[in-house]
Amino acid sequence: MILALAGGVGGAKLADGLANALGPDELAIAVNTGDDFEHLGLHVSPDLDTVMYTLAGLANPATGWGQSGETWSFMDALKKLGGPDWFRLGDRDLATHVERTRRLADGESLSSVTRLLCEKLGLRSMLLPMSDAPVRTRVRTDEGWLDFQHYFVREQCRPALREVRYDGAESATPSAGLADALAAPTLEGIVICPSNPYLSVSPILALPGVRESIRACGNVVAVSPIVGGEAIKGPAAKIMKELGAEVSALGIARWYTGLVTTLVIDRADEALAPSIEALGLRAVVSETVMRDATDRIRLAGECVALIRAGKT
Amino acid sequence: MILALAGGVGGAKLADGLANALGPDELAIAVNTGDDFEHLGLHVSPDLDTVMYTLAGLANPATGWGQSGETWSFMDALKKLGGPDWFRLGDRDLATHVERTRRLADGESLSSVTRLLCEKLGLRSMLLPMSDAPVRTRVRTDEGWLDFQHYFVREQCRPALREVRYDGAESATPSAGLADALAAPTLEGIVICPSNPYLSVSPILALPGVRESIRACGNVVAVSPIVGGEAIKGPAAKIMKELGAEVSALGIARWYTGLVTTLVIDRADEALAPSIEALGLRAVVSETVMRDATDRIRLAGECVALIRAGKT
Repeated sequence: MILALAGGVGGAKLADGLANALGPDELAIAVNTGDDFEHLGLHVSPDLDTVMYTLAGLANPATGWGQSGETWSFMDALKKLGGPDWFRLGDRDLATHVERTRRLADGESLSSVTRLLCEKLGLRSMLLPMSDAPVRTRVRTDEGWLDFQHYFVREQCRPALREVRYDGAESATPSAGLADALAAPTLEGIVICPSNPYLSVSPILALPGVRESIRACGNVVAVSPIVGGEAIKGPAAKIMKELGAEVSALGIARWYTGLVTTLVIDRADEALAPSIEALGLRAVVSETVMRDATDRIRLAGECVALIRAGKT
Repeated sequence: MILALAGGVGGAKLADGLANALGPDELAIAVNTGDDFEHLGLHVSPDLDTVMYTLAGLANPATGWGQSGETWSFMDALKKLGGPDWFRLGDRDLATHVERTRRLADGESLSSVTRLLCEKLGLRSMLLPMSDAPVRTRVRTDEGWLDFQHYFVREQCRPALREVRYDGAESATPSAGLADALAAPTLEGIVICPSNPYLSVSPILALPGVRESIRACGNVVAVSPIVGGEAIKGPAAKIMKELGAEVSALGIARWYTGLVTTLVIDRADEALAPSIEALGLRAVVSETVMRDATDRIRLAGECVALIRAGKT
């Protein structure tokens, strides 16, 4: 069995490839919930939804969030009523948040609600929220501390980022699904998907015991989200620069040193392979930009092969 | 100044006529909130919304609830997720419930939220929830006690009704707006709109002091919601029969005896006028079925004229 750690768009694509490359019993996908927040009284889980919609074939490829073929009557009406409209919620997407919130209020865990929503949308592979307890990513910027979605969506990542913190992570426990996957005797290895290392992967790593379990697994393949000095999607490059890291696959390698055993980098970054290997990681060159379903499955297959090769 | 008491569809139509016949300072409209309920974690106020949408020109004349030109993506998606779909919430309508719930959770009163929503929708006349405290109409049926919306929408009024109760009414106080209108020295009279007497008007009358204040006003015009032995809309006729009342304008007169001074009945019920007058109410014959905006304004004008005539 393989465990994948995923955040938003890039992570969702590789998770989708893995879900197609592996049987449902061969894969567990743990998803960042540090981006979760309460909005309009609703519990919104942006990364869980991005991965869920992507695996269900409902994702909107143009935006990287929400559903394709969405309608916007709710937002239009909300705006007319003077409600907060900085976080856009499509009419179909809204059903996810309302139903999740309703079930959480009834005492169900986020894991249980996530499993149900995934079943209803026909997913074969299990999505596991990283934790059932609230963990909230907060960022210190030039304009002070901001809740993650205020920084990410409302401010569109404009303020320079100085520090990232995962409130609640220390006292949260990994969800039973994630803990079980990490402890499973059948665990072959772990894939860290090409999500933002600071904002999407590190909240998962900040949960008690997770980093240690991943180290103990010792067979960890990460795919670099930085290609040719740029992020494929999202603010990873801007953030790395602001935090003083080198914006390159080598910068990613440094961030993951001691945790990841193999870093998959893009052909564009082939020249960085020796420097990455000097850090003690194996560097494997591939085509890491996933333009279509075939790319996703191929890259997923390569990660699985690397894990299975690493085991021997 | 005239105070109107209104419930759902019929009441909303006459309230709309009054809003067009009178200046905003000449009219207060108190609306039943006994139908309010929590659904999907949202505070839904069906009668307030029907009156608000009607006065805003947004009401759906075909259904008697919700907005015209509505979209249904949310309900479709919610159904796919296995959420409860017996109470239909359109995408635009949903914005009202979400924004109301958000503001109530922030500590605003229902009166304050209602005022804001009405302003945003461009209403000239004030809508006053009958109370800021929760009052919940419950009905005893052949199948036991049911919450109002479960009876009204989920069961579509099928179980025979035996008893109606307004939970919380005794300890609730009228909203400041309703209390002020009832106590205003400028109050000329009260119009009881052609809403269901048992389900829409009586919850208002059940609030402490309201019935007494209306009696003290002594100039109260009601429009019969029963025409030719039938309700224009809704289950009023079925309910009257099940509760052992005569399904006619005379049955309405009996229900309102001691409270209403003038009952406006339809030309179809002209023959009942002597029996109504024998109860001590003045019976006035008119065309009470409001088919269009002109009908609403004409009937409203007649009610206003009757109040002003009654004053002398």
